[in-house]
Amino acid sequence: MHLTEAATPSFLVDRARVERNCARMLAKAKDSKVRLRPHVKTHKTIEGARLQVGAGKGPITVSTLAEAEFFAEAGFDDITWALPLDPAKLDRIDALGRSTRIQLLIDHAQTAAAIEEHAHAKGTRYEVWLKIDSGARRAGVNPESADAIELAKRIAASQSLDFRGLLTHAGHSYQARTREEILRIAEEEAAVLSRFRQRAGMEGIERSIGSTPTASLVERFPECEEARPGNYVFFDAFQATLGSCSLDDVAVSVLVSVIGLYPEQNKVIVDGGALAMSKDGGPTHLDPDFGFGIVCDAALGPLPLKLVSMSQEHGQILGAGERSVARLSIGTKLRIIPNHSCLTAAMYDRYLVHDPGGRLLEEWRPARGW
Amino acid sequence: MHLTEAATPSFLVDRARVERNCARMLAKAKDSKVRLRPHVKTHKTIEGARLQVGAGKGPITVSTLAEAEFFAEAGFDDITWALPLDPAKLDRIDALGRSTRIQLLIDHAQTAAAIEEHAHAKGTRYEVWLKIDSGARRAGVNPESADAIELAKRIAASQSLDFRGLLTHAGHSYQARTREEILRIAEEEAAVLSRFRQRAGMEGIERSIGSTPTASLVERFPECEEARPGNYVFFDAFQATLGSCSLDDVAVSVLVSVIGLYPEQNKVIVDGGALAMSKDGGPTHLDPDFGFGIVCDAALGPLPLKLVSMSQEHGQILGAGERSVARLSIGTKLRIIPNHSCLTAAMYDRYLVHDPGGRLLEEWRPARGW
Repeated sequence: MHLTEAATPSFLVDRARVERNCARMLAKAKDSKVRLRPHVKTHKTIEGARLQVGAGKGPITVSTLAEAEFFAEAGFDDITWALPLDPAKLDRIDALGRSTRIQLLIDHAQTAAAIEEHAHAKGTRYEVWLKIDSGARRAGVNPESADAIELAKRIAASQSLDFRGLLTHAGHSYQARTREEILRIAEEEAAVLSRFRQRAGMEGIERSIGSTPTASLVERFPECEEARPGNYVFFDAFQATLGSCSLDDVAVSVLVSVIGLYPEQNKVIVDGGALAMSKDGGPTHLDPDFGFGIVCDAALGPLPLKLVSMSQEHGQILGAGERSVARLSIGTKLRIIPNHSCLTAAMYDRYLVHDPGGRLLEEWRPARGW
Repeated sequence: MHLTEAATPSFLVDRARVERNCARMLAKAKDSKVRLRPHVKTHKTIEGARLQVGAGKGPITVSTLAEAEFFAEAGFDDITWALPLDPAKLDRIDALGRSTRIQLLIDHAQTAAAIEEHAHAKGTRYEVWLKIDSGARRAGVNPESADAIELAKRIAASQSLDFRGLLTHAGHSYQARTREEILRIAEEEAAVLSRFRQRAGMEGIERSIGSTPTASLVERFPECEEARPGNYVFFDAFQATLGSCSLDDVAVSVLVSVIGLYPEQNKVIVDGGALAMSKDGGPTHLDPDFGFGIVCDAALGPLPLKLVSMSQEHGQILGAGERSVARLSIGTKLRIIPNHSCLTAAMYDRYLVHDPGGRLLEEWRPARGW
């Protein structure tokens, strides 16, 4: 069956592009002598993770405990949960820990204390990473602060915690404006960890970095032990606009049908709304009017059309030029490259996987929930 | 079990509030002698739909064919699919039509022709509504146009189509700024249909209206045969800000845990990000800095905190005043009233339903997909 015969909306994955994206990142890690522990949050599928690690299993990073459980069930036995945790989840982590190695994140003394208390009560130990803020100002300790050194020392001295190392995510690379800026952030991402390690007198612990813009643009990874990019599996309109990849690297699209024609408004309606696309504004720092994805024809050729607004099931597409909607009919299939593939993929219970010619090959079923 | 013991993030539904919201709308419809055909897209659950119709089954409106199939399976046998359709779905509609009455929407001659062609080939007929744009400028024919009259006449004359009536959705009520403006839109919503019916010389066909802001604010429904509000089941931060309801009417919240404390940034991180909340900007026409929901304590008391940004699993909350994050600890439970309950509910495979005291009563499982 050809992808254009699928019911709309559908989430389409080009397997050859996923394979190419994964192989490229694996080669870079090997070349740089850095352990690749890819993030699987973008796709949350067993098939995708196996392509990322280049084997039946391997070290991975997850964003939710539900993902960790899903991948452990499939045999993945070396998992880092890269989110500061709610200590109320430690019993569930213990259950998971019986079948897989699970490494946790800490960025506050209260979390360290709660984990230690639980470990003491249960007679267990936990492998932990200290989350460092390398400039994204989302989570992580400020590496210049005295608190950060104190927390590192506390973890290192703990009887209940195995201090694995320092972990950071250069999320601010998404807000960069040039390739040079991303490369500077990439350098700094690892350097921050090296400086902190030295300042804390802990040369033996590891350094884990990773964001798709930085990991994609560097020729070789900077000096570190581990890298955790994730979005590169699929990429998306945001990454292509930012320059992390070319548009030909983006492996996903949403198939939609034209269900309304309003030529007097230079507009069509498609059956891809907020539930089919998710609602991410895209790289608005580079283009305030980016729209909710890149609208393409069924062969993925970009069209002079813009997805300007979405309600639950309606997507409103305006013609960029006069009469640019004129060639569309009710039932015409369009493909929209999503702004943020992680969020769009999460709207689907199954992905339709196709070959370069558009022939449907298989379905991938992602983990869901928390 | 109390709701604060649930794993985070969880989608919480206050059953007593849902019951009250549903009873109020049913009473208004009865009082107005208007058929209520509630939209079920907000919750997509059998339990919610039964409260909306006040019986085991009744007439409903759906936004996807998957919803129609889900509700038909549970015995709902009178369904309107309120979205212009992709004619490629007619075979699936035929299968559904064997167990339920299914009414379709048309707003273009090409769709009418495709349905007629299919009907002719299969020897079937379809009940259809003509979608009218009463000012929302999303879908629907322009009621002032000659094309609209022509399409109405074509449907009326068709051997394959049963012309049920005129249907509109005053979606522009969401962009209103005052109660008075919403009431004016409510009046116009029905009046547009009455005028069109008269102009087309089709006094016998029905008029179907419905948006939650207009349906919630009117004392009685204006002159029409059917009303199709949906969001009022749950309401949300948008509707409360717009004035469709009070904050005490909002029946849903997302339970999250504080997982990061950054007092030097006057910030906390919670485990409710873009996947737990969805990403809807809310009533930005009334408050450009509304944030991604209303942040409350575990008892649903609003706090001087604002959910300012979200990545996939991180929600970043800033204190509105100095030191307003100071009373929060790692593990503190917060409840966030979502901006747009339809989109937030869709992120969950199950809803945790509680009583007014916060005791968990049951789980509701929504339909998903298309």
